[in-house]
Amino acid sequence: MFSAIDAKHMARAIELAKRGIFTTSPNPNVGCVIVSANGDVLSEGFHQKAGEAHAEAAALASSAESVAGATVYVTLEPCSHYGRTPPCSDALINTGIKRVVVAMQDPNPKVAGRGLKKLRDAGIQVDVGLMEAAAKELNTGFIKRQLQGMPKVTLKMAASLDGKTALSNTQSKWITGAAARRDVQRHRAMSCAIISGSGTVLADDPSLNVRPEELPEHVNTGCTGEIRQPLRVILDGRNQLHSKLKVFADNNVLVINLSPNVELSEADIKQWQAPVQNGKIDLRAVLAHLAQMQLNDIWLEAGSRLAGAFIAAELVDSFILYLAPKLMGHSGFSLVELPAFEKMEQVPELHITETKMVGDDIKIVAHFR
Amino acid sequence: MFSAIDAKHMARAIELAKRGIFTTSPNPNVGCVIVSANGDVLSEGFHQKAGEAHAEAAALASSAESVAGATVYVTLEPCSHYGRTPPCSDALINTGIKRVVVAMQDPNPKVAGRGLKKLRDAGIQVDVGLMEAAAKELNTGFIKRQLQGMPKVTLKMAASLDGKTALSNTQSKWITGAAARRDVQRHRAMSCAIISGSGTVLADDPSLNVRPEELPEHVNTGCTGEIRQPLRVILDGRNQLHSKLKVFADNNVLVINLSPNVELSEADIKQWQAPVQNGKIDLRAVLAHLAQMQLNDIWLEAGSRLAGAFIAAELVDSFILYLAPKLMGHSGFSLVELPAFEKMEQVPELHITETKMVGDDIKIVAHFR
Repeated sequence: MFSAIDAKHMARAIELAKRGIFTTSPNPNVGCVIVSANGDVLSEGFHQKAGEAHAEAAALASSAESVAGATVYVTLEPCSHYGRTPPCSDALINTGIKRVVVAMQDPNPKVAGRGLKKLRDAGIQVDVGLMEAAAKELNTGFIKRQLQGMPKVTLKMAASLDGKTALSNTQSKWITGAAARRDVQRHRAMSCAIISGSGTVLADDPSLNVRPEELPEHVNTGCTGEIRQPLRVILDGRNQLHSKLKVFADNNVLVINLSPNVELSEADIKQWQAPVQNGKIDLRAVLAHLAQMQLNDIWLEAGSRLAGAFIAAELVDSFILYLAPKLMGHSGFSLVELPAFEKMEQVPELHITETKMVGDDIKIVAHFR
Repeated sequence: MFSAIDAKHMARAIELAKRGIFTTSPNPNVGCVIVSANGDVLSEGFHQKAGEAHAEAAALASSAESVAGATVYVTLEPCSHYGRTPPCSDALINTGIKRVVVAMQDPNPKVAGRGLKKLRDAGIQVDVGLMEAAAKELNTGFIKRQLQGMPKVTLKMAASLDGKTALSNTQSKWITGAAARRDVQRHRAMSCAIISGSGTVLADDPSLNVRPEELPEHVNTGCTGEIRQPLRVILDGRNQLHSKLKVFADNNVLVINLSPNVELSEADIKQWQAPVQNGKIDLRAVLAHLAQMQLNDIWLEAGSRLAGAFIAAELVDSFILYLAPKLMGHSGFSLVELPAFEKMEQVPELHITETKMVGDDIKIVAHFR
């Protein structure tokens, strides 16, 4: 069904899709390549931002020649419905496209296959499944939200080689180096929201935003000037936050608590009261709420207690751990608070997918099993 | 001074030297290639075992043709003295060799250059320093002992991703997987001695030997049948050991304590009384003693307290850490006991030289700064 030529063009479409990773949310990253009957690439496109052209529309618009008889390579099933833009399947049909190669169906089971059917009904050859795994990798958060109504959660932590986050006197700046901190900026920039806890916010008074000047130089944010800032979500089960904190310097913040915080209300800071579970904020309900807000990818930067609560509730998908080449010793603060397990079989297990050096530090990427 | 051809032959000599890594101690690993005037490789050799032929002698002996006019590539300066075997420099002179290319001088400052001078005095062209760094890497322990009268110490530890070695109830089997344990066997087999503490020996009753059947399949030990077993060195400052432990199943053990242990004496178990320092065994004196016993490479498999004492005394050269993809939580046992530091600047720092996957676990190799 698929040739080496097909694979070459789909690989290019996947590369194009990645240009949107800093900007498309809540929409997925999609890339598109249009190739003429005699094999010439007529145009390329990718989805840059919600409300703007989908990848197929962008590619169609940028072709200087007629695309009649051409093949379209697209990383995600073309949409069949009117959203903020007209349906891409109609656009493809109207231009006389002969064949559409699709990496993956729409993950939403309610609409999956509709766009493909519309194309096939119009007499277009449709081939689905080329490089599906790579296409899924582009949109893990979007797909999880479509399928499960929950966002993808990536927990970020940093420690010494012996798993300590601070000395016994709480000193912790800086454990990891500048390169690791820049890498964190890149991950924040790719995320729809950052979750942190009031403990961390009160202790360090961080702004928790993306600082474009600290992004690695190779990062192309796809933006001219302003960068998309992830929503900052601060969990504050005991209403300890006050309005003078740096994180409230702009209004791109949501405080999640159990009862309204009057001082924050008076400062027009957005709040959402979460359901309670065992006297604490129901973390699963928080994530479901964020999914309803169309947030796909959550970057969790929390202390040992909140991180441990998310892990124990099995709400974390990915774990990114930066280990600094230091040994802080047994009296330092431990990475993560978890129940006191009685058997090794009870311990949370992960699958390591990547280890690499980031400056002098080790970056470990893992997924919870 | 050196051509690409020279580099090719020296690279081969270094590969040959590695065949001795499981067997040459207390001698260094040395490889040798002899190349005729018209560029043919006449013979190769490496040092396999103390008392047997040096690399140069092995290569000379295995050449089917005359080596007159040939060039000899050797990874270490040929010896000039009578030891267990006659001096290699004499042997090279007697055969009419024209040129000798040497990767590094003898590290022992008392004899360095003597072999080279003898060759030059006999009219042989001698070129020194080709691939010196790689040649030094072959014999880091031997070189340290020659230069400093101390062995190279490699500390091995294993923990979960959050730096824990056991659950709060002390359960710890197995944190790392079978591949990591096989890798440890390979490192043990390359070591002259294994140091452990009485605490570990009493808690786990390990044999601490090399189990040939557990070595990775690709390991060529250079031995037929029996493998060289490293000396087991058990530190027992409070005379807690007894003679029924598995580690005493053979007599390749040395107990280091502060006063003689009568039960062990009665069982003919070797002991050495170390100097005392702050009421404990003087670890620096222990290592100096092992260097006097001609031990080059020490593999330190210790618990958090003894490991921390070696680190705090700045006696550890290399650190090999296996991290299992698990999170054991704050209540588990911490990797290493160190003084309670007050500032991040006081924390021991390392330089990571390698990270790789060993089975499902991460292996980190680092050097103390």
